[in-house]
Amino acid sequence: MRATVLHAPSDIRLDEVADPTIEQDTDAVVRSLASCICGSDLWPYRGLAGTQSKPQKIGHELLGVVESVGSSVSGVSEGDVVIVPFLYSDNTCALCAKGVHTSCVNGGGYDGCQAEKVRVPQADGTLVKVPADRMTDALVPHLLALSDVFPTGHHAAVSARVTEGSTVVVVGDGAVGLSGVLAAKRLGAETVIAMSRHEPRQAIARQFGADHVVAERGREGAEQVKEILGGIGADAVLECVGTGDSMKQAFQSVRPGGTVGYVGMPHDVKLNVPVMFFTNSNLVGGVAPVRAYLDELLPDVLDGTIEPGLVFDQTLPLDQVADGYTAMDERKAIKTLLTF
Amino acid sequence: MRATVLHAPSDIRLDEVADPTIEQDTDAVVRSLASCICGSDLWPYRGLAGTQSKPQKIGHELLGVVESVGSSVSGVSEGDVVIVPFLYSDNTCALCAKGVHTSCVNGGGYDGCQAEKVRVPQADGTLVKVPADRMTDALVPHLLALSDVFPTGHHAAVSARVTEGSTVVVVGDGAVGLSGVLAAKRLGAETVIAMSRHEPRQAIARQFGADHVVAERGREGAEQVKEILGGIGADAVLECVGTGDSMKQAFQSVRPGGTVGYVGMPHDVKLNVPVMFFTNSNLVGGVAPVRAYLDELLPDVLDGTIEPGLVFDQTLPLDQVADGYTAMDERKAIKTLLTF
Repeated sequence: MRATVLHAPSDIRLDEVADPTIEQDTDAVVRSLASCICGSDLWPYRGLAGTQSKPQKIGHELLGVVESVGSSVSGVSEGDVVIVPFLYSDNTCALCAKGVHTSCVNGGGYDGCQAEKVRVPQADGTLVKVPADRMTDALVPHLLALSDVFPTGHHAAVSARVTEGSTVVVVGDGAVGLSGVLAAKRLGAETVIAMSRHEPRQAIARQFGADHVVAERGREGAEQVKEILGGIGADAVLECVGTGDSMKQAFQSVRPGGTVGYVGMPHDVKLNVPVMFFTNSNLVGGVAPVRAYLDELLPDVLDGTIEPGLVFDQTLPLDQVADGYTAMDERKAIKTLLTF
Repeated sequence: MRATVLHAPSDIRLDEVADPTIEQDTDAVVRSLASCICGSDLWPYRGLAGTQSKPQKIGHELLGVVESVGSSVSGVSEGDVVIVPFLYSDNTCALCAKGVHTSCVNGGGYDGCQAEKVRVPQADGTLVKVPADRMTDALVPHLLALSDVFPTGHHAAVSARVTEGSTVVVVGDGAVGLSGVLAAKRLGAETVIAMSRHEPRQAIARQFGADHVVAERGREGAEQVKEILGGIGADAVLECVGTGDSMKQAFQSVRPGGTVGYVGMPHDVKLNVPVMFFTNSNLVGGVAPVRAYLDELLPDVLDGTIEPGLVFDQTLPLDQVADGYTAMDERKAIKTLLTF
């Protein structure tokens, strides 16, 4: 089969590799319907995720069809359309029971999902079936968005304690930040301010329900936020980037007693703990436990209440995956969907 | 009047100073019934709170009787017994409305409460009246504990999201940590583990409802916590010290997806943000907004449901205040109550 392989920074290739097979009786093999490129894939692509010693398959977002299952798998079977959350989990351990599927004692990551097929360990705990009678082609991007990007924005909003009537700032106008706007509105936020300098991203933010867009950054951006929100900053800030600057922006924008919900993988983030302490500004979040949220989010996608797949502004066949990386790296695409 | 003054590290004196007076029409002057020494008073006493350029009045916890009020004060009047939360606040600004009285736009701290009288700005917003028909001498320590120490433990528990059925670890066996044990139990925690090596403190922890006491610290302590809690760590950890070591202990004891509620003023605390991110371990807390909690907590003290004043294991008249500092500094007393 063909699989996307990162050989070295900036060197993405579609290689011919061995087909995955059932290795454990709890596995499934899933044939891809759609995959995509994540902002976090750009870290190794840019050589910023540590030294890479050998070529590695890449990608972790997938919508697919079950091709085969191990002997103990009972929840899904051949032909089922399934959402593949970006980490696998057994959905039964003590930590899954607490909703932290990302720390499942039997969990882990995949061997590259920008590929024609993927082996999914812990298939029963991991895969979420799309009801056959509800499946349509038009739903593909929105269902694919449930494998990572939308639940990650949702996790930022949940972590930041967005609730009915909250005032919200979203730092980051990538696909995750835009998803955070949609998630915050879905959870009942009264006012959502998207921080974005890029016209096409601002447009999606507004489509997702953003009430205001602030183009300025740093102190100036934070001042604008405060002005919009009656002088005190936001109840909830969604930090969807993961850099030192974006985290600083987040804490500058949150009100005393408010919470920064962060889902951007932190790179060189330093926190001013005494200031956090004296202002009761909280830090909640981390890697999104996608599986924990799917039972809540899938119905809203199936009935069209939300269309999280609008973050995909580029669609390419798998054999142009390298172009997708280039486009996202150069910020010419927000998020690239790969077809098979 | 007599007031406690810190002249230099370890040099506590009871000085004769001018009586406080009404300076603004929103002030009250309160005559002290009981005050006490806080663990945080030991930082400047030990010379660890920055250089001190001149003698300073000290103390911020008080139960007293209103002696006089400014012309616009209507909520309290001469003769009322009042709890004086350790910061003053107007209880009406946008931040007070959000429950963050510690960041009140018209708020601040007092000019030393280990004194015979204190000026309380924003008297209407700050002072909480004890109903005259409920007041007894036996309630004095428990009411005094509501001015800071118990609501601070409560804030740690609320911040750590302690709720019905939570598993809880309390790091720190000072008066705040012990208060955290009581607060966690009051909020319905199923299992509370107090980390303490000191027999008399262990006894109070058990009296406050601790189900287990762990004497070990560091990795070994965290291992014991995990063993007690089925292998995964605590839902909620109350960090009630504020040192780098205690914060580390807290994060070692919390389960993935759990929350560290911190109320120890941070000194040299460094956070491992990537580990927090990958484990969804959260940091919530800060300076306790005492005033925000008093309407909820006072009734439980008045009807004897909780006895937070049990943290006072030494009672001294004001003129022996220096002995109280020595006793607390040498950990011979948990918390010293001062009588007038």
